[in-house]
Amino acid sequence: MMQKGAILVLSGPSGAGKSTIINAASDEIGEYYFSISTTTRDPRMGEQDGVDYFFVSKKEFEEDIKAGNFLEYAQVHGNYYGTSLKPVNQALEQGKLVIFDIDIQGHRLVRAKMDDITTSAFITPPTLKELETRLRARCTDDEEVILRRIANAKEEIRAVGEYDFTIINDTVEEAAQKFIIVAKAARLKQSREDEEKFIQRWLG
Amino acid sequence: MMQKGAILVLSGPSGAGKSTIINAASDEIGEYYFSISTTTRDPRMGEQDGVDYFFVSKKEFEEDIKAGNFLEYAQVHGNYYGTSLKPVNQALEQGKLVIFDIDIQGHRLVRAKMDDITTSAFITPPTLKELETRLRARCTDDEEVILRRIANAKEEIRAVGEYDFTIINDTVEEAAQKFIIVAKAARLKQSREDEEKFIQRWLG
Repeated sequence: MMQKGAILVLSGPSGAGKSTIINAASDEIGEYYFSISTTTRDPRMGEQDGVDYFFVSKKEFEEDIKAGNFLEYAQVHGNYYGTSLKPVNQALEQGKLVIFDIDIQGHRLVRAKMDDITTSAFITPPTLKELETRLRARCTDDEEVILRRIANAKEEIRAVGEYDFTIINDTVEEAAQKFIIVAKAARLKQSREDEEKFIQRWLG
Repeated sequence: MMQKGAILVLSGPSGAGKSTIINAASDEIGEYYFSISTTTRDPRMGEQDGVDYFFVSKKEFEEDIKAGNFLEYAQVHGNYYGTSLKPVNQALEQGKLVIFDIDIQGHRLVRAKMDDITTSAFITPPTLKELETRLRARCTDDEEVILRRIANAKEEIRAVGEYDFTIINDTVEEAAQKFIIVAKAARLKQSREDEEKFIQRWLG
């Protein structure tokens, strides 16, 4: 399979402002495909199938696992979450930058499978305290969810060194400027030929 | 030692156009320090001490090796070539981007010592044949030197996969645009705190 695109993995605590940063930067980073996860959990109010997630049954998900249709997947709080290979490969074949918003386990799995075309950034508020302030300010989650997000964040921050870049989201403008550089750098891995092929062609 | 700068290592065959690309990009990449190598070989016509190289005696060089004053060094065709730590650390402390034009062995040594603040790019003409054409066109080297450069290039290309980026110098304009992105990405590693310190500060 000739893949012409490149992958940009974004991780970081829920509430880090990943979507806001991508939106603020989107005019500058060229055409990209934002990878939509597949999940077995129920849609929440306002969530749309094919926009927020692909919502599938547990049976469908487990069949796709067996068929090897996932780039990565995990079970979290009893629900499956995963990235289907098909739309990702399609976007890569179209030469697009594929952006993932996945957790640290997902990052490790993508790295393991597509390291040569992958760039990654860990996006986070300046401190845990600031994360908590932001999570409470947006008033979308109940106390239990907020506490779980904070507990997750405390664990996830330990993996920051596994990422190519760290983007501290202090102000959206600065973070978006950094994100634009990261996205452009990720695109430079686009069309990276298989190393051995490149060397053979180069030698002539 | 608190290092505020970042390192950008450039490697690639002599004749790849590294200097031309840096010059074409220099207005866009902010303040940088171009690392000057130290060597025991004799200056060639037109070469200036402190500009092209720091020219030193074999005795001085070997004393500096013993004193641990080199970031990296190697012996090539009977002469020593190396990078003194002092000006590099000075530039890093001033928050500058330090650009190295060193070979693949040098890259490995810099990676081993300063991986967390290092970005690297392999710069090369599109093919070996094109490299040969360019080396002959510039009329600065005699046949023996050209043949040695080609032989070296054939070896060095095999290390291309060790670099964060490959920049194919087809046209100077395109290569310079790519170099600007790489240099900006390299700067994002600037002020990267020690990972453990960052995590502790983040947790509060």
